[in-house]
Amino acid sequence: MSVFSHPEFDLHEQVNFFHDEATGLKAIVAIHNSNRGPALGGCRMWNYANDEEALTDALRLSKGMTYKSALANLDLGGGKSVIIGNPRQHKTEALLAMMGRCLESLSGRYIAAEDSGTSVADLKIMGRHTQYVAGITERAGIDGKASNGDPSPATAYGTFIGLKAAVKQRLGRDDLQGLSVAIQGVGNVGYRLAEHLHLAGAVLYVTDIHQEQVDKAVQLLGATAVSAEDILALDVDVLAPCALGAILNDVSIPTIQASVIAGASNNQLAASRHDMMLKERGILYAPDFAINAGGIIDIFYDRVGHTPEKVLRHIETIGETLAEIFRRSDTTGLPTGMIANTLAEERFMGR
Amino acid sequence: MSVFSHPEFDLHEQVNFFHDEATGLKAIVAIHNSNRGPALGGCRMWNYANDEEALTDALRLSKGMTYKSALANLDLGGGKSVIIGNPRQHKTEALLAMMGRCLESLSGRYIAAEDSGTSVADLKIMGRHTQYVAGITERAGIDGKASNGDPSPATAYGTFIGLKAAVKQRLGRDDLQGLSVAIQGVGNVGYRLAEHLHLAGAVLYVTDIHQEQVDKAVQLLGATAVSAEDILALDVDVLAPCALGAILNDVSIPTIQASVIAGASNNQLAASRHDMMLKERGILYAPDFAINAGGIIDIFYDRVGHTPEKVLRHIETIGETLAEIFRRSDTTGLPTGMIANTLAEERFMGR
Repeated sequence: MSVFSHPEFDLHEQVNFFHDEATGLKAIVAIHNSNRGPALGGCRMWNYANDEEALTDALRLSKGMTYKSALANLDLGGGKSVIIGNPRQHKTEALLAMMGRCLESLSGRYIAAEDSGTSVADLKIMGRHTQYVAGITERAGIDGKASNGDPSPATAYGTFIGLKAAVKQRLGRDDLQGLSVAIQGVGNVGYRLAEHLHLAGAVLYVTDIHQEQVDKAVQLLGATAVSAEDILALDVDVLAPCALGAILNDVSIPTIQASVIAGASNNQLAASRHDMMLKERGILYAPDFAINAGGIIDIFYDRVGHTPEKVLRHIETIGETLAEIFRRSDTTGLPTGMIANTLAEERFMGR
Repeated sequence: MSVFSHPEFDLHEQVNFFHDEATGLKAIVAIHNSNRGPALGGCRMWNYANDEEALTDALRLSKGMTYKSALANLDLGGGKSVIIGNPRQHKTEALLAMMGRCLESLSGRYIAAEDSGTSVADLKIMGRHTQYVAGITERAGIDGKASNGDPSPATAYGTFIGLKAAVKQRLGRDDLQGLSVAIQGVGNVGYRLAEHLHLAGAVLYVTDIHQEQVDKAVQLLGATAVSAEDILALDVDVLAPCALGAILNDVSIPTIQASVIAGASNNQLAASRHDMMLKERGILYAPDFAINAGGIIDIFYDRVGHTPEKVLRHIETIGETLAEIFRRSDTTGLPTGMIANTLAEERFMGR
């Protein structure tokens, strides 16, 4: 099975395999679509069982980035790179430098950002050999404070905006005073979302595998700690998944009592059919790749001139995009995830 | 089966898959090794049965170019590109223009030349969108006459030089007066080789699928026409394959009476074992990729400043390289094809 006949191949424009014997680099760079602009996406390092698995990931994730960036109205295409290897064992400065040179040779058609297995420090090493890495400049974050480029605050703010749009649609209210929200995962993004919600008067229920994060939310934000098993089925207004993927599945969906799902984690639906299953249960699902686009918006502005005002204004359009998705879902009877895909396609295919 | 685990993958540095829906372009660009310089090689268009076959071709042929250019002492690496499609049906100006843009995006790590299914005119269309095509400039040929960039005269001259080196080694003579040579194929390259041999006093036996080429050689060069069936087993001093590949095989080798094989066609050995089979029969084989490098030498100088003198001087080093191969083969008892591979590796791996 080659690239063009791979089951995950979906009109990808370009797939590049790089190999360097001296440093042990084996990498795949996939560019799904560049109609809207250069393909920006994470550079992941992972100990894939084989090349096939790495290719599957690169093809699937690069396509996801096309949809995410188009839906966020960014002048970006979709791409992703994967380095095959164990980040703890095989990640050397020489390997990262070589990866930088490989990226440079692609003339900017793909721009790398940090991802699983790579850090901002790693991207900076690549950045000595290529101009095509993003999210490595020291500048003010969206809150105006110094930032090392971490997009988590932007992702959290976008999720907060999206959650409000969903609450307005499903519960008909503009304020969040007294609204109950269960947050699965209060890490980099989830905790910041909790802060926004707390300031807006919401009542929080939280869980996390790191107890100190839970303790902080309890002490500083008045949250109630909940076990990992109970969080999804809690009797709350909103469920905000901010940790794992595939948590909306055949087992969890029948138990969910919240009428809104609005959280930042990727790939929340275990399979595409769960999109419709949520709609049939009357649960309004804010598609993950629409609501969690704050990070990519933040990174985009690193390349075109970052000011907190511009970024905040752009992130706030996530609310408008979600409102459009919810309206169309109501009108057509189709589930929100499917509508989000169609809207994204409208936004990148015409270009 | 992916790229890194493909049976023909041999430490290739970079393999790129390009796809463009609008023009129907599906292409693979393989860069085997760039230690000596940018990877130059033909851009082939072929109606491959499937992508797998196209990838196999790209991987195999790009590696062959690394060996050929290194052995010819050129500052070039090895690459090859393949466009999947029927050149008569699918080759449009838009597709060629898109291919040009794809090549441009690779920053010059690969440089395309014409090949099966593509013409100089096609390369010129690509050349409107990229600086990374070779062999499309109008300039003086190696004979000082105007040339459209056709490398055949250079290939023929290099083969003539190589043939002389082989004759000196095996028959101990410097002049070719009265030497009998059977030429399989008197097309672009074979006919020009015949001209050189005729001027040097050799006696020629020729065959070709085009009768008019045979007639021309008979009338102008005093050649004797021979049937396609008889050419390989003729009782001559030298056999010069200038048409088909894989003609040195289990069937033909036992019937060959020539003591020297020196011709321009590619992939003359049906399998690598036939290299040793020739040596065991006392036949001196001038490895095809060593003797037919005149064309790539000619094209190389298109990019760095082409003068007939410089190119002729470089082509004449083919004789020295072959002499070195023959010496090592004598010393080690190893067949010439194997020695040529080793010598090529010495010339690109150290760089």
